[in-house]
Amino acid sequence: MLVVNFKAYLEATGKKSVQLAKIAETVSREKGVQIAVAPQFSDIEQVSESVEIPVFSQHIDAVKPGAYTGHVLAEAVKSAGAAGTLLNHSERRIKISEIEDAIATARESELLTLVCANTSGVAAATASFNPDMIAVEPPELIGTGVAVSKARPEVITTSVKRIRTVNSSVMILCGAGVTSAEDVAKAIELGSQGVLVSSSVVKSKDPGRLLESMAESSLAVR
Amino acid sequence: MLVVNFKAYLEATGKKSVQLAKIAETVSREKGVQIAVAPQFSDIEQVSESVEIPVFSQHIDAVKPGAYTGHVLAEAVKSAGAAGTLLNHSERRIKISEIEDAIATARESELLTLVCANTSGVAAATASFNPDMIAVEPPELIGTGVAVSKARPEVITTSVKRIRTVNSSVMILCGAGVTSAEDVAKAIELGSQGVLVSSSVVKSKDPGRLLESMAESSLAVR
Amino acid sequence: MLVVNFKAYLEATGKKSVQLAKIAETVSREKGVQIAVAPQFSDIEQVSESVEIPVFSQHIDAVKPGAYTGHVLAEAVKSAGAAGTLLNHSERRIKISEIEDAIATARESELLTLVCANTSGVAAATASFNPDMIAVEPPELIGTGVAVSKARPEVITTSVKRIRTVNSSVMILCGAGVTSAEDVAKAIELGSQGVLVSSSVVKSKDPGRLLESMAESSLAVR
Amino acid sequence: MLVVNFKAYLEATGKKSVQLAKIAETVSREKGVQIAVAPQFSDIEQVSESVEIPVFSQHIDAVKPGAYTGHVLAEAVKSAGAAGTLLNHSERRIKISEIEDAIATARESELLTLVCANTSGVAAATASFNPDMIAVEPPELIGTGVAVSKARPEVITTSVKRIRTVNSSVMILCGAGVTSAEDVAKAIELGSQGVLVSSSVVKSKDPGRLLESMAESSLAVR
Repeated sequence: MLVVNFKAYLEATGKKSVQLAKIAETVSREKGVQIAVAPQFSDIEQVSESVEIPVFSQHIDAVKPGAYTGHVLAEAVKSAGAAGTLLNHSERRIKISEIEDAIATARESELLTLVCANTSGVAAATASFNPDMIAVEPPELIGTGVAVSKARPEVITTSVKRIRTVNSSVMILCGAGVTSAEDVAKAIELGSQGVLVSSSVVKSKDPGRLLESMAESSLAVR
Repeated sequence: MLVVNFKAYLEATGKKSVQLAKIAETVSREKGVQIAVAPQFSDIEQVSESVEIPVFSQHIDAVKPGAYTGHVLAEAVKSAGAAGTLLNHSERRIKISEIEDAIATARESELLTLVCANTSGVAAATASFNPDMIAVEPPELIGTGVAVSKARPEVITTSVKRIRTVNSSVMILCGAGVTSAEDVAKAIELGSQGVLVSSSVVKSKDPGRLLESMAESSLAVR
Repeated sequence: MLVVNFKAYLEATGKKSVQLAKIAETVSREKGVQIAVAPQFSDIEQVSESVEIPVFSQHIDAVKPGAYTGHVLAEAVKSAGAAGTLLNHSERRIKISEIEDAIATARESELLTLVCANTSGVAAATASFNPDMIAVEPPELIGTGVAVSKARPEVITTSVKRIRTVNSSVMILCGAGVTSAEDVAKAIELGSQGVLVSSSVVKSKDPGRLLESMAESSLAVR
Repeated sequence: MLVVNFKAYLEATGKKSVQLAKIAETVSREKGVQIAVAPQFSDIEQVSESVEIPVFSQHIDAVKPGAYTGHVLAEAVKSAGAAGTLLNHSERRIKISEIEDAIATARESELLTLVCANTSGVAAATASFNPDMIAVEPPELIGTGVAVSKARPEVITTSVKRIRTVNSSVMILCGAGVTSAEDVAKAIELGSQGVLVSSSVVKSKDPGRLLESMAESSLAVR
């Protein structure tokens, strides 16, 4: 499982979000590896209409429909075509009570939840809430090109261990600094079941080729 | 000028956001009154493609494109078709420095800015930032059906007075509890140049008729 | 263990915080029950100098000493005499990553940590961080006079059960609506090891007598 | 007017906050220049009892006494001896509506208000709320040792100009990077009536001597 977070990069905004999602879809189909994309809120609908791979929101608010301005409703992103949502990314951290509420809200709208955790401790705590996926991402490595799987492999192995004492079924991803097929292979060897990538793919001169090599690498390891 | 804030109401989410926007467009065309709509982020694109009246975002973040997850970029909502954005709604208040930055960011993307103010003091402070529009909305009246123009007319007159000592050109709207043509007329008599409405229209059994009567009322006063 | 949160009540601000702390100290000594008090930040020092029972801060920020304005440093409340700190009270919720960091920070300053949880799910998640105490408090009952131990006993029993699967040693308290000796007895019968009280004691006409009866009640149950 | 923000520096926490305040008091008395100090919340009381110069809180929350945990009440810092409070420091920015409310709350408790502004635009907006003092501090210069008065003198002159169109009486300070007597002189020449300093004094090997030279410098300019 590869999840590509489009963040707020212009290289993946508007029409370019559709282009990048189509590239991801092609790689997913050709390599037989599941790839999901997480565009900005206002691009969810056009991306969802253009591709058949899963589209994730980058965040939802833990609120029910009602008098909220500037909030992101589970029902709204679902209606726009999202299959799931990221939660608690280190660039959009939320309160512990909101994680529980947002997972419940997402579930009511049949959205998958991918909760990000900055440490193995937060990953273990998050596992209690039983999300569909947890992505362990040490924020100090995000965007550095130095992969967590290389620089701090113990974060992944400890996270896997701690998560599994609480929760046997949640899918475990890792991220931060993952920029190459080798990083992906290493991440999977260490016990994660997928990776969360962003700038390396979004800002790549050839995102298709990079995604292909990452996909192949993930298959080779299994 | 009538601005309809769709908030996070299910009655104005997804396809229903397009339906309501079309109703607003019809009234706008037939009555010759400018009406703008503010759907949720994920509905901006489909609404913008369906109508020719101005579409507003409910909020933007004061950030430049880059490594931000779950944020709302001026460039993204512009690209999705937005003509402007609300800022600092009482349900999404922001820091004073963010108001200045978000107005600058919006301007770079050629988005109009409508800053909400909960009091005449905040309205006056906001006027220093020179947004395109200021909407004065005492939060304690929002959603009550008790119009600010009836219940606290001095909030409007004081706001107009205080704003004008700082800024001679910003358009002044008012909102909170505005539910009828009469409320709109009164608001304009008191010196505002338009109204910001939400639940009364969004949850109306016949929003077209209500908007029509509000539009007529606003014309009659001028 | 009884913890009295002084909140931002004028009845427990300034000199009155010292008076109330002395009352709590007297009850603690006479009844042989541990009672801790949590005054406002600016009262921690004078309260600590006046009594020998444990004084808790109501919150600390998860930051190290440095260029932070208006923050609450573990080192500062420790220096003022605090023995511990509340964290994540429903009136001061924090991000999940901050809970982990604040517990670590508190520990470095030898402060006990009492983390509040609004649900059994949050309580279980919090238990992963291994604080010294967890207080389960459904926010909808806080200040109502309707005790969690009466109205929603399953919140306590479920919390105890879920916390214990993760953590065998953390002390478990409960709170919200606890106003009488009977409520305390019931809370302890249900498996909690203490209670967190606030308005019922702070705003009582005779806080000493109420604390006495609560203390007696807690002893009777054991 | 010199205001020394103690921030969360260990060099100005606990007993050291009292020592530094006494040094400031001595300089203030000997040089006849008004100096105020802003220690952490938990040090306000002991500092206030030890010196007669004005003591400021670093922040207050815009709430009335009541069921708030971990908040900072105007009444509480006043009761601890504070004469005023900083608001909206760039390390503790608040919403625009909170600035208005906090100024009102402070005034009811007879606390002076010193609102920080990161730009001349925010300074002008803030002036509408009629605080007692405004300190203009470009955050990018804070702690750099590069004084705003040297590096960006136009920020001060523009701020003074813009504030004065709205408010003729508010005292105008400036800050950020102010580390020497020369910086202070320059700041006053540019139209500010005082300075807000922090690390340069708090972390100085000889804060007394530095404050003396700053005080002399401010007198020389007038």
